[in-house]
Formats: sequence, C-alpha cells, structure tokens
Amino acid sequence: MTETGPVVIVHDPTLRDGQHAIRHQLDAEQIRAYAAAADAAGVPVVEVGHGNGLGASSYQVGHSKISDEEMLSTAREVLTRSKMAALMLPGWATSDDLRNAVRHGVDVVRVAAHCTEATVTERHLGVIRELGAEAQGVLLMSHMADPDQLAEQCALMVEYGAQGVCVFDSAGHYLPQDVGARIAAITAAVDVPVAFHGHNNLGMAVANSIAAVEAGARVIDACARGFGAGAGNTQLEVLVAVLERLGHGTGIDLRLLADAADLAERVLMPTPPTIDSVSLASGLSGVFSGFKKPALAAAELAGVHPWDLFAELGRRRVTAGQEDVIPDAARDLAAQGVPR
Amino acid sequence: MTETGPVVIVHDPTLRDGQHAIRHQLDAEQIRAYAAAADAAGVPVVEVGHGNGLGASSYQVGHSKISDEEMLSTAREVLTRSKMAALMLPGWATSDDLRNAVRHGVDVVRVAAHCTEATVTERHLGVIRELGAEAQGVLLMSHMADPDQLAEQCALMVEYGAQGVCVFDSAGHYLPQDVGARIAAITAAVDVPVAFHGHNNLGMAVANSIAAVEAGARVIDACARGFGAGAGNTQLEVLVAVLERLGHGTGIDLRLLADAADLAERVLMPTPPTIDSVSLASGLSGVFSGFKKPALAAAELAGVHPWDLFAELGRRRVTAGQEDVIPDAARDLAAQGVPR
Repeated sequence: MTETGPVVIVHDPTLRDGQHAIRHQLDAEQIRAYAAAADAAGVPVVEVGHGNGLGASSYQVGHSKISDEEMLSTAREVLTRSKMAALMLPGWATSDDLRNAVRHGVDVVRVAAHCTEATVTERHLGVIRELGAEAQGVLLMSHMADPDQLAEQCALMVEYGAQGVCVFDSAGHYLPQDVGARIAAITAAVDVPVAFHGHNNLGMAVANSIAAVEAGARVIDACARGFGAGAGNTQLEVLVAVLERLGHGTGIDLRLLADAADLAERVLMPTPPTIDSVSLASGLSGVFSGFKKPALAAAELAGVHPWDLFAELGRRRVTAGQEDVIPDAARDLAAQGVPR
Repeated sequence: MTETGPVVIVHDPTLRDGQHAIRHQLDAEQIRAYAAAADAAGVPVVEVGHGNGLGASSYQVGHSKISDEEMLSTAREVLTRSKMAALMLPGWATSDDLRNAVRHGVDVVRVAAHCTEATVTERHLGVIRELGAEAQGVLLMSHMADPDQLAEQCALMVEYGAQGVCVFDSAGHYLPQDVGARIAAITAAVDVPVAFHGHNNLGMAVANSIAAVEAGARVIDACARGFGAGAGNTQLEVLVAVLERLGHGTGIDLRLLADAADLAERVLMPTPPTIDSVSLASGLSGVFSGFKKPALAAAELAGVHPWDLFAELGRRRVTAGQEDVIPDAARDLAAQGVPR
C-alpha cells in the first residue's frame, strides 16, 4: 500500500476496556499472551488494567482477578516495542496508584474526567509529569458537550500538563459528522496530539474513527475484535486495514495483527461483542452503556419497555454515576401509562 | 424524530442471506416467527429463500431444510403488510421457478448477475413482468466494476424491464466514498429506485448504506443483527436507528424492530455475525466471502498464510464460481516461498 496520508498511532485498550465485558477477570496468562501478540504485530501502545482504571478494583464496580501490580508487571515483561499505558479516574485512583504504576513500568497514563469537568484532572496530570511518564487527558461521554466546550476543556488539560488529549464516545452515540466537528475544534485549540476512542453502538466505530483522522486526530483507540464495554470498541484489525486502504501508515503488520486478534478471540473473550438491542437503545439515547443491567432491572420492575426507559434517560441527560435516577425514570414512565 | 430527508424503503433479506450462515437450514417455524415479527414492525419488504435464491437447493451449494414452496407459503401466511421478495440467479433458477414463486405469493423478484453481465438477466426480468410481479435487477460483486460500467449495466436491466436496480457489495469491500460514487452514477443513469446491499467485512456496512442514501439510493437492504453471509449484512435495526437520527423516515416502528431483532438472535442464529480475520482478509482483498472454506483448506494444504492467499486471489480478480483458481493460487504462493 502507498502511504499518502498522515501516520496514525493506534492505542490499544483491549486489556483494559475488554475487562468490562468479563467483569474484570483477565488473568496473568491471558494478559501475557495478548500483550506479546500485540507487541509482535507492532501495536504502538498497549493499555492494561481494570476496566475503570488504576485503583478501581472494588465491590462497587467489581474486583479484578489479579492486582494492578500483577497486570502491569506481566504486560511489561513481554512488551519489547510497545509502550505500556494505564487509565486513571480521579476518585478511584490516587497519586500513590500513579507512583505504583510508573514503578511497574507504565509509560503513558491517561487521566479521565466527565467531558465538562477537566478541572478534576489537574493534580494527577501534574503528578504524572513529575514522575516522568507521559501524561494524557481524557474527556468521557464527550457527546454531552459541544465542539467549543470540548476544545476549551482540552485546552485546560494541556495547561495542566497533558501531552495528549483524547475524547471518548462512551455511549457510542456519535455519527461521523459529530466526530469530525469536535475533533476539528479540538485540533484547532491545542498543539498536542488529539485521540479518539469510539464505541460501536450505532455500528459507526470504524467510520467515526476515520472521520476523526480526517479532522486531524493522530491517535485512535481500538481493541482486538472490538473487545470492550457494551457493543464494543472500534475493531482494531478492521481499523488498521481501512487506514492502510486510505493511505495512512500505522507501523503495524496487519497479518500479525490479524493473528493477534484471532488469539484475542480465542483466549480473552467468551464471544466477540455484537450490537444487541440494549446497546443500540443506549447508543441512540446517548446513555452510558454501563447502565444496561440496572436499566433492564428497573424496566422489568416498573413494567415499561427498556427501549422507552433508555430514551427517557437520554432526555434526562444522566451521566455515569447517576444510577439512582434509573428507577425514578422507570416509575415515572409507568405512571404516564407508557405501555410495555 | 423530525423527518427531513427522503424516505428510505428497507428491504430485509434476513430469511435469505442469513441462510448462508447456517447452511440453508431455516425451518418453517423459524421463518414464520421472524416474518411475523418483521411484518408487525412494519418492514416494507421481507425476502425469503435459499441463500443462493430460487431453485438453488442442491448438493453443490447445500440443500435447503425445506422446499422453496414451503418457505414462501409459510412467510406468505404471516405477511399482512410487508411485500414478499425472492432472489433468483439465472443458472440456478428457471422460468418455472419464477412461475412457482409468484403462484406462492411473491410480490418482488430480484434477478442477479455478476456486475458486468447484466445481459443474462434479460429473459427472466421479462418473465417476471409477464407474471405481473415486480421485477428488480441485481449486480453482484459490484466493486469489480467502475461507476460508469455499473450505470450502463443498470440501464440495460431497466431496458429489460427492471422496475428497480440493486448493487450488492458481495465481498464487503467498499468504503463510503466508493459507494457514493457508484450510486450517484447509477441514479443519474436510470429513473427507477436504486438499492444498495452491503456486507460488513470492513465494519462499514451502516456507513456505506448511509453514503448510498446520501447519493440517491432509495432502497437499502439490511438484516436483523446483520444475519448473513461471512461478516454479515448491514444490521437492520442499527440502520433504521441511524436513518431516523438523520431524519429519514422508514415507516418502521423501531421499538418493535428491536424486538424482532431480539427474536431473530434467539430463534434464527447460533450467534450474530462478527468480523473474523478471514472475513476481513476477503473484504480487504475484494474476494467473494463464500470462498472462506476452500481458501482455508487450500492455504493449510500448501502451507501458506490465509491472509496472503486472499490477497493473491484479490490480485487475480477471481469471481464467484471460480473456486478452481484457489488451490492453484495457493500452490503458486508456496512455490514463491511466501512463508506461513
């Protein structure tokens, strides 16, 4: 293939986002096998950890099978060329977790906040820089902010020390034009690499990622077979094939990457993610896909259709962490006589 | 949702293309259950039959579980609002099969040919018109022809009596700009509705279908959960959600469609289709996805990597029916010393 477009750096959170699909139960052997295969294929960055990042293993969101330390040191042993990355959400992780992560060989740490709350990333971005690791800022549920707001929030994170910024389509709500407008606004506002992290709820993860690249994103997140929360992430090996077809170099050996994806399907996942009706409803409504279980339970209890409940949650603009709104919304729908 | 864009007619071949994924083993109960659910949701056209169409049940491509007559009459009993469609490939089906199909209540018959061989559709398009059914012409493996060629071939089919034309992305090879250019050329050349039938090998089936609509297509094929050959078709319920989001009416009740897709996943398929490495390789190379089994066998025997074999078959521009080229290509690769 002739490389005519800009080079794209692929960031691979298979061993972190995929954890959501299996209640954070990856063991050391699985992590070693996939990290080695991704490294062999030349994947530039491999992210490892609990689905919710450093320090998140807990009763509330689920205990990891093995500790953060064991996950990181296992991957570190086999990553010879790939950088190792970790995610952290202030509230779950502390500065101690960051120090611990860097001690175990993490090269890149991403600090994530809700799309309008970049200010909460300030302290930890600073700590990461002090520790000498690469610091990146992440905005979650980014469809809930408009392009200018996102650009402003990204600029704040860069001010705090972020050497890269990333917008997450946490609900899988975007269509390509939505992504293009946001990435264009962000790339105009900051002078660090801009990344996009897609989910496939509307079947658009690859198309959205290409729209991001066309609008100036230079880093794209993608997971083997799309292994990730809900409908899954952008499918890594498919993305790289399409990028190559469009003339964007990635430095990845696509044949070896296909082998790595085959291995991932075999050793990491019960089945690859697909788009079920609940994922579709949450993506369409712009609701956090982690709400699937409580929403199904509340819909059942109140006798309303899950589809209508997701639409109502979307209208209420609920954000991750607002699980308590779900039963209320279901009861209100039932009271309004919305039929199942 | 406000409907601002043109109305799109969704053509649903779940009960025909999905047969490829299960060796044509749908029984009457399955057909009845899904056809009734699709009808209830308001899907305008439901296509039923053997994966290769009327008269194709055979040792060579696999025997259907039940006869064409039983499939059609079963679906006919429960389709109250939806039109019933059938596919036919000259060579498999004869004029007798067409008469039989219309007698069993088929409203629409599609006659399919390789993308450069529209002339073979002439006789059967005429027979369908004589029988008083709606006649449509289909071009298979349409990525192997350029926009002008496709437009020419479509115009020929309209001359023969086609009241609609459809281009199939049989290999799942297209990216949105490829589809847009072709549909635009065809809509400029013919005055009948233009349809697009996508496969998801490059994760682009929904995005490609949207590109088709934007370029003037007024009919889009899509299957519940994408149930279809190889990596599957455009996912019906996802497509309708995205079309609604973009302001295109479909006349379909999305909530009932989601229920129909849930039923389809439960009663029709072992698992919904996903994009495996072989599907990706065949999509990228533009090779007919039905070549999966013989290609894997030939690669194994010759000791070459399936990925390289698909690339070689793509370079040789093999078309459906040229299975005999596969072992030759594998042996040639092995002789050139291409390593596994």
